[in-house]
Amino acid sequence: MNEFSKLPGVGKKTAQRYAYRVIGMTESEARAFADAIVNVKRKVRYCKVCGNFTESEVCSICETRDKSVVCVVKEPKDVIALEKLHEFKGVYHVLHGVIDPMNGVSPNDIRIKELLARVNEGNVKEIIMATNPDVEGEATAMYLAKLLKPLGITVTRLAHGIPIGSELEYTDEVTLARALIERKQM
Amino acid sequence: MNEFSKLPGVGKKTAQRYAYRVIGMTESEARAFADAIVNVKRKVRYCKVCGNFTESEVCSICETRDKSVVCVVKEPKDVIALEKLHEFKGVYHVLHGVIDPMNGVSPNDIRIKELLARVNEGNVKEIIMATNPDVEGEATAMYLAKLLKPLGITVTRLAHGIPIGSELEYTDEVTLARALIERKQM
Repeated sequence: MNEFSKLPGVGKKTAQRYAYRVIGMTESEARAFADAIVNVKRKVRYCKVCGNFTESEVCSICETRDKSVVCVVKEPKDVIALEKLHEFKGVYHVLHGVIDPMNGVSPNDIRIKELLARVNEGNVKEIIMATNPDVEGEATAMYLAKLLKPLGITVTRLAHGIPIGSELEYTDEVTLARALIERKQM
Repeated sequence: MNEFSKLPGVGKKTAQRYAYRVIGMTESEARAFADAIVNVKRKVRYCKVCGNFTESEVCSICETRDKSVVCVVKEPKDVIALEKLHEFKGVYHVLHGVIDPMNGVSPNDIRIKELLARVNEGNVKEIIMATNPDVEGEATAMYLAKLLKPLGITVTRLAHGIPIGSELEYTDEVTLARALIERKQM
């Protein structure tokens, strides 16, 4: 119970339910469960190119996809969100954080020099800033754009605006104002 | 109770609560309430230029603002949503609906010829399509853009994309894919 309650969102009661379930497992089921926990910790590491989770030295995305377009994200889970779309054919760069001076995160604390190293190797034509559209995500995107544009690279940002399928009436004012300012020609 | 239950979202029980409240009013309070109901119906009408609600022949927005930019919306409540931003300096055109063949709404059923008449008077430089980002809203915007662009008018559309302050992980896939496709240069 103590161990299960270390998981996010698991309280005492849920931990107890989990523990009872483990007791109800066969010996080999319990062994497989324990092995999976040890293995995931032993095998999963960061891709040495993009910083995403992988079981090999270089992840399968970095090995097989178009390296001229790099999508910069905050965390590995953002890669999952984007991969679900089956839309993006390029590679990723996971920063493992965003610049956030209020919480003591400076540009040196996230994987910015690794990104610059990738750019310096050549071949990168476009970098898509896909950090979250919040204060820190915006600031990080701006900071990186300033570093990258002098290197002759096209720097783009995910579009901000009204979510598809929503209604003007229920869109928050900040988003609606941004959608108006960033209106585009049809 | 019968009358109150005609209001949207008011059921029997709420109608009863409202009726009891009316009984608890003074004679003059009840009179003021009744007068307000008669007056709103008698005085409020559509602005003959833009189609928004107004108490005069031409609404205050049409009378005072920049007529070279026209923002096209579906309903009067969308004008309220946009006015809250204090961002837009132009005028509106309320369509009172969107093209929706499945529900029998054709281009002739909404205020499109009134929009074309305004354009033909000259002075209009830009038309912003601010219909909702759903199937009917998009179709209506496309239909109008096709009509208006040959007249030499700049036709723009509110930006679609990730709402400000949200996270990639929680953005629906259609919106995220659109934000990726419509990414813009920084």
